[in-house]
Amino acid sequence: MNKSYSSVETAKHSSMNSPRTLRLEIGKIRRTLFVVGRKVAVNLTSCAPLQSKFFSVKCSPNVKCQVLSQVQVGNSLISQQPIGKNTVLLISMEAASSLPNDSKLSVKFYGDKSENLGSALLHLTAVEISLDVDTDRDGIVENNNPNKASWKWGPNGHGAILLVNCDSETSYKKTVDYEKEEISKVSDLKDMSKMILRTTGPSELPEGYKLSLHISQTDAERVRIFRSRSSKQAEATLQNMLLSLFQKEYPLVLNKKQLANEVPYQGGKNELVFYVEGLHFPDKDFDGLLTINLSLLEPAGEGFPPTPIFTDKVMFRVAPWIMTPNTLRPLEVFVCSTRDNHDFLKGIKQLVKTSGQKLKICYEYMNRGDRWMQDELEFGYIDSPHHSFPVVLDSPRDGDLGEFPYDTLLGPDFGYVTRNAPRKEVSSLDSFGNLEVSPPVTVNGKNYPLGRIIIGVSFPTTEGGRNMTKVVQDFLWAQKVQEPIALYSDWLLVGHVDEFLSFVPAPDRKGFRLLLASPDAAYKVFRTLQQKGNGKAKMFAGTNEAVSVDDILSDKQFQAENRYVQSCIDWNRDVLKKELALDDEDIIDLPVLFKVDNKENRALAFYPDMVNMLVLGNNLGIPKPFGPQVNGNCALETEVRSLLEPLGLNCNFIDDFTSYHKLLGEVHCGSNVLREPFTFKWWNIEL
Amino acid sequence: MNKSYSSVETAKHSSMNSPRTLRLEIGKIRRTLFVVGRKVAVNLTSCAPLQSKFFSVKCSPNVKCQVLSQVQVGNSLISQQPIGKNTVLLISMEAASSLPNDSKLSVKFYGDKSENLGSALLHLTAVEISLDVDTDRDGIVENNNPNKASWKWGPNGHGAILLVNCDSETSYKKTVDYEKEEISKVSDLKDMSKMILRTTGPSELPEGYKLSLHISQTDAERVRIFRSRSSKQAEATLQNMLLSLFQKEYPLVLNKKQLANEVPYQGGKNELVFYVEGLHFPDKDFDGLLTINLSLLEPAGEGFPPTPIFTDKVMFRVAPWIMTPNTLRPLEVFVCSTRDNHDFLKGIKQLVKTSGQKLKICYEYMNRGDRWMQDELEFGYIDSPHHSFPVVLDSPRDGDLGEFPYDTLLGPDFGYVTRNAPRKEVSSLDSFGNLEVSPPVTVNGKNYPLGRIIIGVSFPTTEGGRNMTKVVQDFLWAQKVQEPIALYSDWLLVGHVDEFLSFVPAPDRKGFRLLLASPDAAYKVFRTLQQKGNGKAKMFAGTNEAVSVDDILSDKQFQAENRYVQSCIDWNRDVLKKELALDDEDIIDLPVLFKVDNKENRALAFYPDMVNMLVLGNNLGIPKPFGPQVNGNCALETEVRSLLEPLGLNCNFIDDFTSYHKLLGEVHCGSNVLREPFTFKWWNIEL
Repeated sequence: MNKSYSSVETAKHSSMNSPRTLRLEIGKIRRTLFVVGRKVAVNLTSCAPLQSKFFSVKCSPNVKCQVLSQVQVGNSLISQQPIGKNTVLLISMEAASSLPNDSKLSVKFYGDKSENLGSALLHLTAVEISLDVDTDRDGIVENNNPNKASWKWGPNGHGAILLVNCDSETSYKKTVDYEKEEISKVSDLKDMSKMILRTTGPSELPEGYKLSLHISQTDAERVRIFRSRSSKQAEATLQNMLLSLFQKEYPLVLNKKQLANEVPYQGGKNELVFYVEGLHFPDKDFDGLLTINLSLLEPAGEGFPPTPIFTDKVMFRVAPWIMTPNTLRPLEVFVCSTRDNHDFLKGIKQLVKTSGQKLKICYEYMNRGDRWMQDELEFGYIDSPHHSFPVVLDSPRDGDLGEFPYDTLLGPDFGYVTRNAPRKEVSSLDSFGNLEVSPPVTVNGKNYPLGRIIIGVSFPTTEGGRNMTKVVQDFLWAQKVQEPIALYSDWLLVGHVDEFLSFVPAPDRKGFRLLLASPDAAYKVFRTLQQKGNGKAKMFAGTNEAVSVDDILSDKQFQAENRYVQSCIDWNRDVLKKELALDDEDIIDLPVLFKVDNKENRALAFYPDMVNMLVLGNNLGIPKPFGPQVNGNCALETEVRSLLEPLGLNCNFIDDFTSYHKLLGEVHCGSNVLREPFTFKWWNIEL
Repeated sequence: MNKSYSSVETAKHSSMNSPRTLRLEIGKIRRTLFVVGRKVAVNLTSCAPLQSKFFSVKCSPNVKCQVLSQVQVGNSLISQQPIGKNTVLLISMEAASSLPNDSKLSVKFYGDKSENLGSALLHLTAVEISLDVDTDRDGIVENNNPNKASWKWGPNGHGAILLVNCDSETSYKKTVDYEKEEISKVSDLKDMSKMILRTTGPSELPEGYKLSLHISQTDAERVRIFRSRSSKQAEATLQNMLLSLFQKEYPLVLNKKQLANEVPYQGGKNELVFYVEGLHFPDKDFDGLLTINLSLLEPAGEGFPPTPIFTDKVMFRVAPWIMTPNTLRPLEVFVCSTRDNHDFLKGIKQLVKTSGQKLKICYEYMNRGDRWMQDELEFGYIDSPHHSFPVVLDSPRDGDLGEFPYDTLLGPDFGYVTRNAPRKEVSSLDSFGNLEVSPPVTVNGKNYPLGRIIIGVSFPTTEGGRNMTKVVQDFLWAQKVQEPIALYSDWLLVGHVDEFLSFVPAPDRKGFRLLLASPDAAYKVFRTLQQKGNGKAKMFAGTNEAVSVDDILSDKQFQAENRYVQSCIDWNRDVLKKELALDDEDIIDLPVLFKVDNKENRALAFYPDMVNMLVLGNNLGIPKPFGPQVNGNCALETEVRSLLEPLGLNCNFIDDFTSYHKLLGEVHCGSNVLREPFTFKWWNIEL
């Protein structure tokens, strides 16, 4: 039974271009439409009259015939040939017809003594039909790319790309564009992918033939298709002109309520332009691929439904949402203005001015006191060969800043996406301080040219741990191009990965350093201070929380807490080393001490957590730690400078003590940065 | 920024086996557990006292050390070596400890003048831990297969396999086994995959260390894990013995309510056996892969949660549900007995007796008059290296035969699966006469050694068409190993693919023929009859539906209907030729005429539809067509014999006229066959 496995026997099929079966009847004229590039197969044995022994074929010069039988394959034929047990005539045409039924073919059958037993006629109309997209990803819709119906990753790959039309052409009375019922502005067309139906043939199709564009029910949830009015409609008669006043300029062709729709055949050599709009990002139940079909329908006789005789397909992949690591050039910095953050704002303003970005301040009428700009949203972008724009991912956190992403950020060429989770499933781990992305890395030969997403979750061995909600995790994994790493952040009271890690640009090695908070490094600083005679120097000097180096070093419980914290960070360190292929030399330990909350048994920063910084190129906005003063300098600032300045980084210490640190966040938690997209194109990843 | 893309720089990581970060403190003893095969990294620079310039290391003979620093990599060390900027000590152990903390390591630090500045101590307990499964697919759980955490298709692939435990160990008061709360019979264990935790080490773990088995929340919906009682529990004290009377023999370890669970460490060289049970077949939202983790938890100090210091992972793939084509050896034939099908039953009994299968009759108390045995269920099987059994897929059709699959078929080593669809979404296309499978084929070099599933749907270009319900389609596609082909069957009133196609075994070519119903072939038979002077011969002779050959050939409307039917079948013929890589010589056209229903505008067989046959090896049960009698023989039977007998097939014509044909079904619709599974193993497919 397995004898047929060899691929030799079936290899010819790949080149046979699967001909269409057509039947002829003796004494009848069969009319059909022929699509150039395809073949039609007529089984002569099955239509031959009884006693037929031979046949001959005659056809118009533009029709090519070939006999495919058990015994022989011929090339041209007019003279009589014997009919075999399964004699098949393959018919092809190489150019479109000028007039309907302008090409003819006749088959005559003969008996033993060459008497004519009957003949069958075929009238053919040839058309060229191609549904085209930008399969080679150069921004131009080429003609009938042989790979148009499939999708392949990588620089030698192919396949067209679709954007989720998730921006809003209007800035007032906003709706995300794909939720609008029609195209309201011509500018919206650039967010869509062009698809062109190219046809060549007679001015009209023979009666009853139709072109139908169609999609599957599943795909219809994820794509909409509009078209430009056809050139025929544009050649307006007076009546048409009047009508057109009431017609939409870009009628909707397909959506979830309309899975198939007739599209006009325009005659001659013509193009009909469609605009294809993505509605959904890749997700758990959607791999991002969509197929759009164009079928040519043939009338099957009075009262019967028409049957498709040719189907052309094109495939799109919906562009993933891509995050931007700290190593990408910053464009705009976002912070909140609150009643009590004047000093902080001043520090940020100074930093941003030095660094040269735009500063966008979210005022209190919008933020309603919620200052955690990092937590409510994550900036990213979507990219295609024809267009690209930033897209904000709105966190299900939905604090008082909840409306900011939609109300303020969404706009023309600024997209918006969110994932809704049941309120009771949302925890502090859903704030996007718990969602970061590494710079590009190569791990065991596998390239991550867009870096890897980093999130924080609980240990799976811990019952009752908090987690980032499943819908957001599913969304992040489904984007595929920045394969996520799950760290352990549930040991922190607030539970965000940005409480213990950050990435800064570096001129050497992998182009960056991973910064990790380190109680071990902090103890080393404090022990050195003590040994050098600065044991009496105080942290938080001048406040009622002031505490000396000696006091800190003698607190056994505090030491136990920090030993525990270090073991939690070390677990993450080992995962990061493995998953990002980092050496110890790629990691810098910043001196940060933590304390463990009695009630929750979870950790929080003891002094402003310096790793929680704002990275603007080489300019860093670091939480001012208020460490022990030695010779007029903060020993912690001195240590951090000595670690970072050799990399060409400028350390700016920003006072966030009262307005952020005391509220369990720091500079990074209170800011956000819109960055330039990668120059690397996501579709060139080898997945 | 892209300078770090080369894989050379990071290549060493793959062999570094990602060491665990461990911190030492001067003047302290650090105790830890060491897992043989892993490495531990201690950063000496960061734990060195101020002014340290040199260090030395001394350790027990079973501990191996290596200095990994920016400047040098050494092999052994006792003497003083300089401390670099980032001097890391890599520690490894090659055998398990006999006693806790039986291995020691000490590091001493020296200043410029060789004065001892302090030392740190490490006490180590080495254990061997491996979570093992049958990754090489030979039915035996091997020791620590390096590929155990991943899954790869093909003969050179790897990865363990899990069955959905969908049979029922009991035949009375039945529940599918995976729905039972506990293992009720020891025989149930053979439906599960063994997983073994192998440990070697001291008799007890040092205090506070624990082993935890854990799975993700998503995987927990799809798998349950039981274990045998540990050998320790078996070495029962009297108290234990009394307790054990109340303990389950195979306690449940993990399920969706318990994602993590401590498992006992047994001491010495020991094995703990787990039994892993699949709960769900691959589906739209489940690719079939499951990961099970075992972590070693280290106490992090009084009052703090323990942290995992080692995690071992194994991966399973849930075995797909596999259909069996007509070319596989039949085992049992299923038909219904009804008040009115005596003749039919007689014919079937005779056929099955000749052919040598068991005949299973479903009596009226169970079928309640519903005779469509083909439509209510599809037989298939699941397979793994350790076990295999048949599984019935119950159709959402749910006719009066609806209870038969569960009540009668489900039992020990006979599994059951169904997919529930909303009542209003279920149509006639959900009957499993509309679900078939081809014999093995190779298409453009791609092997389908288990054949391809065939279903019938509506043309996507047709609004309002009927379809096979989405949940069943999703299920079929998700099994992956028999990639489905969607044909067009909505043109038929009943709408099943078995109304126009069947497969029969053949000694030559691909090992089978595709049989297609063909009005064209039927007209040829009738025209030949007319031409040979048998125009007056009658179909259905002796009934009031009798109709002559001449009458049939002169009916223009009937001819138009059959022309339309032929065009519908030809569309399917072209798809099948392409998707199964068939030549015309692989297809046999059986003479069948259809008529088109006025109201629905859909087709049904005019005389018993001979393609709708029962295939039992070389013995065919074909609906008796009652065609025109010529010389005492039915001309249609003669024609069919002449087409099939040369292939060594025995044609048995069974009278299904009144009891099936008149009710819009035939022999195939009224029967079902349980067949032998493929000898080819599904995991050897190259996907």
